[in-house]
Amino acid sequence: MTDRLVINHATVREKMDMTAFVKACSRRGLSMVSIWENEIDRIGKAAAKEVLTQTGSRVFGYNRAGPLLASSATERRQRLDAAKRSIDLALEFDADHVLLFPGGAPEGEKGLDGARGMTEEAVGHLLDHLGDGAARLALEPLHPMLAGDRSSIVSMSHANDICDRLGRNLGIVVDVYHVWWDERLDEEIARAGKHGRIAGFHVNDWLVPTKHTLTDRGMMGDGVIDLAHLWNAVKRAGYDGPIEVEIFSDDWWARDADAVIDLCIERCASIFGLVMERA
Amino acid sequence: MTDRLVINHATVREKMDMTAFVKACSRRGLSMVSIWENEIDRIGKAAAKEVLTQTGSRVFGYNRAGPLLASSATERRQRLDAAKRSIDLALEFDADHVLLFPGGAPEGEKGLDGARGMTEEAVGHLLDHLGDGAARLALEPLHPMLAGDRSSIVSMSHANDICDRLGRNLGIVVDVYHVWWDERLDEEIARAGKHGRIAGFHVNDWLVPTKHTLTDRGMMGDGVIDLAHLWNAVKRAGYDGPIEVEIFSDDWWARDADAVIDLCIERCASIFGLVMERA
Repeated sequence: MTDRLVINHATVREKMDMTAFVKACSRRGLSMVSIWENEIDRIGKAAAKEVLTQTGSRVFGYNRAGPLLASSATERRQRLDAAKRSIDLALEFDADHVLLFPGGAPEGEKGLDGARGMTEEAVGHLLDHLGDGAARLALEPLHPMLAGDRSSIVSMSHANDICDRLGRNLGIVVDVYHVWWDERLDEEIARAGKHGRIAGFHVNDWLVPTKHTLTDRGMMGDGVIDLAHLWNAVKRAGYDGPIEVEIFSDDWWARDADAVIDLCIERCASIFGLVMERA
Repeated sequence: MTDRLVINHATVREKMDMTAFVKACSRRGLSMVSIWENEIDRIGKAAAKEVLTQTGSRVFGYNRAGPLLASSATERRQRLDAAKRSIDLALEFDADHVLLFPGGAPEGEKGLDGARGMTEEAVGHLLDHLGDGAARLALEPLHPMLAGDRSSIVSMSHANDICDRLGRNLGIVVDVYHVWWDERLDEEIARAGKHGRIAGFHVNDWLVPTKHTLTDRGMMGDGVIDLAHLWNAVKRAGYDGPIEVEIFSDDWWARDADAVIDLCIERCASIFGLVMERA
């Protein structure tokens, strides 16, 4: 078994439910999985727990707490409550970290200042709710092309700044897709590492051309990101967790899920030098 | 006549050639236009000069010098020579500034370090070629979603850093579409302004959702960018040039070009408080 590589369920979500996915990972000797709450809902909490127990799989990333933003205070409070329930469920599943998903700015709002303030306030509340548990919360800066409808946190620098202000139990997931373009990246990864903040390292690739802002991510090696360089940067920054494959792609979703998982493992082995031991 | 508002020909390029476009701007009391070299080629240099002279229009932005990058040294030298010819032509057209277009990294190259080094080297050569002319060259940081195939300069900070290193006669065009997401934006606009670097201010809008990475820009007011805030930021930074409308959009290209120009003027008047005086 290996804990060096994790597949995120989103990578094969169209062809495998959570039960099939966890078994598929386990069969390949992967000891951890990253999962989604909507997929737990799809098969039911009992079935989700059962397959994890049965295969002895642990949960690495738990997706997700959010969206957090809304136009009215009442709605924001409701979303905050829902996010707290997600965190509770993640703790029940013994997840390593819970991904925070701010969501887009309320409709009609111009600019990002308001959304940024609201997000930070909400994250503060969620950290209070979490307390000093085993898991931590994780910001995942998203690509700037998603600033309008997914997240106002679109750079490692901004995520680091928020961590500086909100303190411990808050980490950062570095997803190469979202941050590869940033000329400050190496230094911001080092900064995150210095504070032990790097909670995960997500891989996939940037395709040229990119046909869709959400669902056209590439398989590792098919795009232009210098993946080995970034992996070395997070390792140098002290990250000793696994590489997590997360590919949102209409193209890969349409293919045979077992073959996709095999290819993910193969590509990670050749790009990152990960040796997979079969169980 | 007003020199406070400029339309970029790209906004209506599908329905108006350069002759029709310059006349349309002039009829509306706009004393300047921003033009494209491929559109000069389309009608011929003589015709392009004639319509400018006839209407008494001046050229604000000249698009463009580049692409600059290529995989071999020979090809790069050829592209540099072509860019020099574009700069010469821009000077002949008495342009205020020439947009630099780095282009994508050479095929097969991973990461952006190589492209960044090559771009900066090429811009240095072009500044030498320009000498102390009337025009200046302008970097235009593009949106990070274009880092793979259009430009490795994707933030105001990076453009400012390059200007710091390469010195005078190099400016920055601030296009709201490309930079609006940046949490450092206000401070980087102020930094650019302090050095008198802001060569232009391009407006359009970010639509939610965005359907295409190149050709789905919005009309001012239809998206989520806080345009008035950014205009105030560039004015506060000392910029006293015009607002330039540049919309790349399959949607707007398909409409009647005269109506589009009228709407651009109307939207700019209401968002930026620009009073248009008819000639």
